[in-house]
Amino acid sequence: MSELKNDRFLRALLRQPVDVTPVWMMRQAGRYLPEYRATRAKAGSFMDLCKSPELACEVTIQPLDRYPLDAAILFSDILTIPDAMGLGLSFNTGEGPQFANPVRTPQDVKNLGVPDPEGELKYVMDAVRTIRRELNGRVPLIGFSGSPWTLATYMVEGGGSKEFGKVKGMIFDRPDLAHQLLDTVAQSVTSYLNAQIAAGAQAVMIFDTWGGLLTPRDYKEFSLRYMQQIVEQLTREADGRKVPVIMFTKGGGQWLEAMADTGCDALGIDWTLDLADARGRVGDRVALQGNMDPCILYASPERIRTEVGTVLKSFGHGNGHVFNLGHGIHPHIDPENVGAFINAVHDLSKPYHQ
Amino acid sequence: MSELKNDRFLRALLRQPVDVTPVWMMRQAGRYLPEYRATRAKAGSFMDLCKSPELACEVTIQPLDRYPLDAAILFSDILTIPDAMGLGLSFNTGEGPQFANPVRTPQDVKNLGVPDPEGELKYVMDAVRTIRRELNGRVPLIGFSGSPWTLATYMVEGGGSKEFGKVKGMIFDRPDLAHQLLDTVAQSVTSYLNAQIAAGAQAVMIFDTWGGLLTPRDYKEFSLRYMQQIVEQLTREADGRKVPVIMFTKGGGQWLEAMADTGCDALGIDWTLDLADARGRVGDRVALQGNMDPCILYASPERIRTEVGTVLKSFGHGNGHVFNLGHGIHPHIDPENVGAFINAVHDLSKPYHQ
Repeated sequence: MSELKNDRFLRALLRQPVDVTPVWMMRQAGRYLPEYRATRAKAGSFMDLCKSPELACEVTIQPLDRYPLDAAILFSDILTIPDAMGLGLSFNTGEGPQFANPVRTPQDVKNLGVPDPEGELKYVMDAVRTIRRELNGRVPLIGFSGSPWTLATYMVEGGGSKEFGKVKGMIFDRPDLAHQLLDTVAQSVTSYLNAQIAAGAQAVMIFDTWGGLLTPRDYKEFSLRYMQQIVEQLTREADGRKVPVIMFTKGGGQWLEAMADTGCDALGIDWTLDLADARGRVGDRVALQGNMDPCILYASPERIRTEVGTVLKSFGHGNGHVFNLGHGIHPHIDPENVGAFINAVHDLSKPYHQ
Repeated sequence: MSELKNDRFLRALLRQPVDVTPVWMMRQAGRYLPEYRATRAKAGSFMDLCKSPELACEVTIQPLDRYPLDAAILFSDILTIPDAMGLGLSFNTGEGPQFANPVRTPQDVKNLGVPDPEGELKYVMDAVRTIRRELNGRVPLIGFSGSPWTLATYMVEGGGSKEFGKVKGMIFDRPDLAHQLLDTVAQSVTSYLNAQIAAGAQAVMIFDTWGGLLTPRDYKEFSLRYMQQIVEQLTREADGRKVPVIMFTKGGGQWLEAMADTGCDALGIDWTLDLADARGRVGDRVALQGNMDPCILYASPERIRTEVGTVLKSFGHGNGHVFNLGHGIHPHIDPENVGAFINAVHDLSKPYHQ
């Protein structure tokens, strides 16, 4: 493997000194980029794009060719694991993901196996290997997975949901069954992320998109517990370097302390928290990644720059900040505005690292 | 006006002693009830239902005829004010509300007037008067409005939104214009709620559905500030009784202290907070209304009863708790389960008031 030319991102996640604050964006390979839309059109369906290591590599690297980003993130979908479990994933235009075989009964849960990351999911590992080779040490590559709870919501609901009645019905009335399901999914995520690390991922992120819809008690029992199980079983070193783990629960700002106690290296923070408050709460246990409101990118470049300054000031001096949006970039953002954003982070963060 | 036979709800909001914890449900007049669906079918469009005082009264009272609820809430929509401002509201099946004339330019904002509550909005006041008469003192009647920020999101976006790019673009790039808009809406809400109180509403609730999508700074500047302005200008007494004001920001659990400082009487709490923690944070400044996860109603009656017990225990002994769901009841809930829920609150809460 070629030597890493820019390791700001990895250093910041481990709360080590950096020259400027590293920055990347959730969904940086995405629909706001015309070059992404061109590759997507060429690929056929969304899952065809995910399943082609060459095209997944192409879209992963596109934003790096436009902007001086400090990390790349594997282009994939969080639903690869349930798809590999045989649930029959499809994406219908305008309707989001759908599973032909949702998981509802004890027998459904019992039938689930842990997918082989170098078997049914080999296309993901091939993408990681291809991207690492093509990156050639430019920046680190982030691997990722959905959290067990988040994956379980799609698996039980049979797709996206507004009400989450089926999966919550399961945790309330059949907690034993929910735990059995979540344990299988957690084992699958662990094996999936460890395979990504073996294939070349230099940091990993767990996306808990729907943990914030739980009560504090249910969050700990049905989401955090399984993320902790994963963190404890991940390979934490590769190529002689530590592999940092980032945990992100959208809307989980109230549970930062508990998340920091899991042993992960960094927490993703959405924009509903003040970064100074968040830092005060977690102390030096973890780095923080975030937390600019993604909607600021609808504003003018000047206003974006001011907001970047505000977020940097909120974190303040010292180590342990990775700049990011508080959630994925929206599809209708002007790519020029993204350039203004990324440049502002590097420009304005210098004084905080002197 | 006839004497109030059950004033538990009003007493609890003012942190006065009660015999059992009062309970009502957000969207208690709604699609989960077959009798509601029948009236809705008879009415024509959703707005036709809102605009008929007789039918609005009918659906308001339907849940009280089924369950021993401790309050009625005016059946109406939060978008009556922008509709009365001439924005051209329609509800398209499956697409939610849409405005033919969204508010985007300085001229659009300038053109907005404060609607006359006994003019364009007289149908709402007529509904309040009709319901008060029909209730005949059974339970208190709650009036309500959307918060200025929440109404502004619909007015600027032109309907519902996932990304809120237009309204956030306005607060970021044209905060002056956003403030001008919010001030007009806040004046309209104040006049609307005061007219509801004059017409017979015995408590009022401000629904800030979208405040939780703001950063802490923007929440204070663009949402809370205008709710406070309203609270300060509301009529707080009618028929020789205090008219309590309830403030509810969905996803606003991080800002409870600031909300309690506005001078409102009670805070609505969603289910992502532990009620004991919330109580500890606001002390005796306000009562709390909430906070059971609405999804628990998908579970069995036994499980629902257990959960009611958990929520009651979390609040503990003492005054100032109104039981409610943390958000509106879902349309697919079994009405039998609702009965189990309401009865459990009254049954299990007795020991906390002895």
